[in-house]
Formats: sequence, structure tokens, C-alpha cells
Amino acid sequence: MSTIKVGIVGYGNIGRGVEAAITQSPDMELVAVFTRRAPETLTIETATAKVEHMDALLNYKGIIDVMILCGGSATDLPVQGPELAANFNTIDSFDTHARIPEYFESVNEKALEAGTTSIISVGWDPGLFSMIRMMSGAILPVGEDYTFWGKGVSQGHSDALRRVEGVKNAIQYTIPMDEAVESVRRGDNPKLTTRQKHLRECFVVAEEGADLAAIENTIKTMPNYFADYDTIVNFVSEEELKANHSKMPHGGFVFRTGVTGLEEENKQIIEFSLKLDSNPQFTANVLVAYARAAVRMNKEGMKGAKSVFDVPLSYLSAKSNLELMRDLL
Amino acid sequence: MSTIKVGIVGYGNIGRGVEAAITQSPDMELVAVFTRRAPETLTIETATAKVEHMDALLNYKGIIDVMILCGGSATDLPVQGPELAANFNTIDSFDTHARIPEYFESVNEKALEAGTTSIISVGWDPGLFSMIRMMSGAILPVGEDYTFWGKGVSQGHSDALRRVEGVKNAIQYTIPMDEAVESVRRGDNPKLTTRQKHLRECFVVAEEGADLAAIENTIKTMPNYFADYDTIVNFVSEEELKANHSKMPHGGFVFRTGVTGLEEENKQIIEFSLKLDSNPQFTANVLVAYARAAVRMNKEGMKGAKSVFDVPLSYLSAKSNLELMRDLL
Repeated sequence: MSTIKVGIVGYGNIGRGVEAAITQSPDMELVAVFTRRAPETLTIETATAKVEHMDALLNYKGIIDVMILCGGSATDLPVQGPELAANFNTIDSFDTHARIPEYFESVNEKALEAGTTSIISVGWDPGLFSMIRMMSGAILPVGEDYTFWGKGVSQGHSDALRRVEGVKNAIQYTIPMDEAVESVRRGDNPKLTTRQKHLRECFVVAEEGADLAAIENTIKTMPNYFADYDTIVNFVSEEELKANHSKMPHGGFVFRTGVTGLEEENKQIIEFSLKLDSNPQFTANVLVAYARAAVRMNKEGMKGAKSVFDVPLSYLSAKSNLELMRDLL
Repeated sequence: MSTIKVGIVGYGNIGRGVEAAITQSPDMELVAVFTRRAPETLTIETATAKVEHMDALLNYKGIIDVMILCGGSATDLPVQGPELAANFNTIDSFDTHARIPEYFESVNEKALEAGTTSIISVGWDPGLFSMIRMMSGAILPVGEDYTFWGKGVSQGHSDALRRVEGVKNAIQYTIPMDEAVESVRRGDNPKLTTRQKHLRECFVVAEEGADLAAIENTIKTMPNYFADYDTIVNFVSEEELKANHSKMPHGGFVFRTGVTGLEEENKQIIEFSLKLDSNPQFTANVLVAYARAAVRMNKEGMKGAKSVFDVPLSYLSAKSNLELMRDLL
């Protein structure tokens, strides 16, 4: 069997996770990692793969079957997504919710022109959580959705903390409220405020001589990020932050609580949850499964931009349809 | 918008559930219920739909867009599945695991000849549980699967009880062992015996004068059904059985516990669970969502037999791809 040739564009936490995920997939092979840095300054784990500057991407046209884009949604993907779709099958984890339809269109145009297949917004949210919400809503049309995130590190909220005057370093955990989760799980269909759903816990390293009370106040009253939540601020040393808070766990819960029957007399509850020791590695594993799907869809003539809603699940697997049906249906 | 015209073949618990599910789906319309009984003896809930004898099925060719087959897997579906696929798009919940590939082939042959689309083995297990197992295994290729069923009524085990000499009526609940579920949820990756995974609790109405000790012993030592489990036998009156055990709750848990990272250093846990007040109604709601998918796939030229692994999730929904992407991705 010839392997699927993969390129990684951007070598941060997710890029490194993709490299590790490929080692778990005997049908796939990492060909090159593309970086904005000077290639000779970057060491990767895969002895058989090359490190290339992003300027060399087009040299791999016809050689690499699928590019996995591991850049950020704010500035990298809006440019790279359409550009690379014009030359390769691509996978990305674009996650700026409000701009997804617009991003989809920009990638779709290039992919249709080029005859490539690009699956956008892949990961676990957007991604697996979206799939469960969509599927569950179609199955239980009369019902409510609930999504809880955490316990996990939110990069956006951690960044917001680091922008506060007097803060040297910081990390923020989003924590779902047990009581709210249990109420949904019981089928109470509660109306929950933002404050009732999640707690925010911050671990902050202050600059020397900084006014701790002022920092805490600034954080707790920060609009959008913290003001609507119960927020706990813990001041810790740089060493403690490094020792106890350098991992990137995450997870969450998606619920659909619906009713069925002519008199809507029966409650039906669907729950999906993730408990992840490493958010970037799990996201990477999802990206790699969808990379396999993109190559197969392209070979079968399914071209243009796609979302996770468009991909038959069998395309994620290296197993044949008969094996899947026999062993897993 | 013209509605999707649906026929129900077989009017037991699932058939009645499908009728109720259609009332929750404004894009669908029940045209007729087909029965083996004398049609005039059957009363249905939908004033605008007809009751027809199964012999009249072919009169609806070209009128009904999709037939939902609500018969049993043992004798009904092996005959009806291919026969109806030769004339209609169909959905069924064929659940004899070992015979799925063979059943698929028999339906596929007829559907391909006729240009129809038939989605087989739809429901929650096989069905949603299969999808989660398949998808999770593709995402976390290094890991373990666990499936627990219950708490819920097992028809097969209840039937086995009713065949015991001296038993007048009976019902059996399959109950997952909390300790086993918690161990999996913690990521212990336990090796679990059959006995450690599920408990079987029976509520038995004995014939007058029957030897209760003999009944209990026969049940607890029954091979395949009860001998490998801890089994609780409760003797109750017919009234008590009717009052407290006439509902059909069910549910269960699917887990994938995997590792990621170059040194497999991070645990990642995927969990999916269902808590259902009515097993047949929930199954029916799944069937109806896939009926929508079958009609759309057929219109788009995707013909032959399909399993849930072959159906893009967006096809389950009445919403447009743009709506799904904007509101649910």
C-alpha cells in the first residue's frame, strides 16, 4: 500500500502533535514540515522528513497529498487557507466562529478552481462537538443543547491575563460547574446564566512590587473575559507556574436533552464528553484522521471546501468498509 | 417546500415511535402504515394517513419516498429488506451483528438494480454507538473500546425468562456496574470480565403453585443469557409487573480511552452516553433522521445499500448546509 504523504504547515504545539499522530498511523507518512523560521534552526522528531521554509511550499505540489495547516485563526489561516487550497488538499482548525461562512467561501472558491479538497474547522470544538450538536439536534428536534468546556486551559483568557499591567505570566482554567452539569444530566432542562455554567480560575505571576489588589480587581472586572463569571485569582511564583501549570489539559461536555412521543412524554438524553490530558495532541489526532478523509474524498471526485458535516465517517478510517461493517457496526 | 412522503412497514412499538417522530418533523409526512393484520382492525394516530395491508405496498411505488421498516431482524427484515429495496428507498434497524455483511449484500444487490438507496442497521446500537466507536478509533488509533448497556430492558433476555417453565410473565433489566464504568472513565484501562461489566436483574411473575426455587435456579444457570453474570431474581405479582415495569427505558455508554504523543504520554478519553426513557421512541427518531438522509442521497445519485458510516451528518438535518455551518459548527 502506498502511504498518504503529509505536510505540516507551522510547527507549534499542534504541528508537533500532528507529527506524533502520524507515527500512530501506518498508512501515513510525514514528508516535510514548513516553517517561517530559518529551517536549519528547527529540529523535528521524524528522521525521514525535511524541514523547509514556507517559501518552498509549491515545490511539493504533486508530491504531498495533503497539507495540515497548524497556524492560528486570527492572521495565519485567512491567508494560508485559500492560498494552499489552490495547490493542495488541506485540513485546518479555523475556529473564529463568526467568520466561518466567509472563510469557507474563500477556501471553496480556490479549491473548486484547483480541483482540491479542503476540510475546514476540524478539531473538537469546532469539530467533534459540532458534529454531536448537529446530529443530536436532527435526531431530537424538540429539545435543548448544552455545551460545557473544561476543565482546561483557555489560551484566549490566559493571553488576556498577560496583558494586565503588573502581570508577568499567567494561565487560566475554565471549569464547568458540577451542579449545572448534574442538573442537565438529570434532564432538568435548566436555564443557566453564564455565571452558573463555568468558573474561571487564574494562576498569576506578578511583576516585582506590583499592586496585587489592583491586578485582582482589573481581572475580575474585565468585560467579556471575566466580569460575567465567578473568578478566582491565585498569585503564584514563576517556578510554581512552570511546575504545576505547564500542561494543556482540556475537555468538555455536549448534551442534547429532548422529548419524544405524541405527547412529548418521554425524556431522552444524549451526552458526549472529552477528558483530554493534551488539548493540542488530541486536536492533532482529529486533524490527521480528517487528512486521510480529504485525500480519499479528492480521489473520489468530492472537491471544494468541506466541513465535518460533509464527511462520511468511514472516510476517517484506514479500514475498509467491509471491515468497519463487520467489526464496528 | 414539498414534504418527504414516508411509509411505515410494521406497527409495533417502533412503528408507533416513527409515527410520533414524524410529527416532530415538519418536512416529513406520513402517507401510510402497512400491516400484516386486517387493516380495518388497526387504529393509527395520524388522521391524514392510511392503513394498508402489506399486499398493497407496491401500489405506493412512486408515491412514497422512503419506507421505514419496523419489523424484526430474525425473520421480517431478511425478507422485507431486499424486497422493498427493489422498489423504494428504505431504512431499517437490522441488528443481528453476525449477519450484517450478508444482509448488506442482499439489500445492496436489489437497491443497485432498482436505483434506490437503503440505509441498514440504523438505531443506537447498531447505529449511534457504532458511529462513535468507529470515529473514536480512527481518531485515537492506540487505545481501548468499552461499551456498557443499560440501565434498560433487554427484550432478548426478557423473552428467555418467559420460556422458563413455571414463568407466566417477566422482564429483565441490564444494569452497567458503576465501579466498572467509573474505572474506565478514570482512564484505568481495566480488563473487565462479563460479570464485572453488567448485572442482570429479573422481575418474574410465576404461575400459581410453581416451584420458585427451581425457577430461580434455572434462570441463574442459563447458559449465554445469565450464567456468566450476577443475576438477581425478584418474584412479583402480575399487577406489580404492569404497574412498575411496563416502560421501556434503556441507554448505555461508549468509551474510547487512548494515548497520544511520541511517547504515548498523554491519556485522552472520549465518552458518549444515552439515557432514554423510551428505547423504541428514541430508535424511531434516529430512523426518521436517516430516512431524510436516504431520500436526499438518492436524489443526489448515491444509490445502493449504505450503513451509518457512509452518510454525511448534514444529510440527517432539514437545515441547509449554510445554516448548519453558521449555527452549529
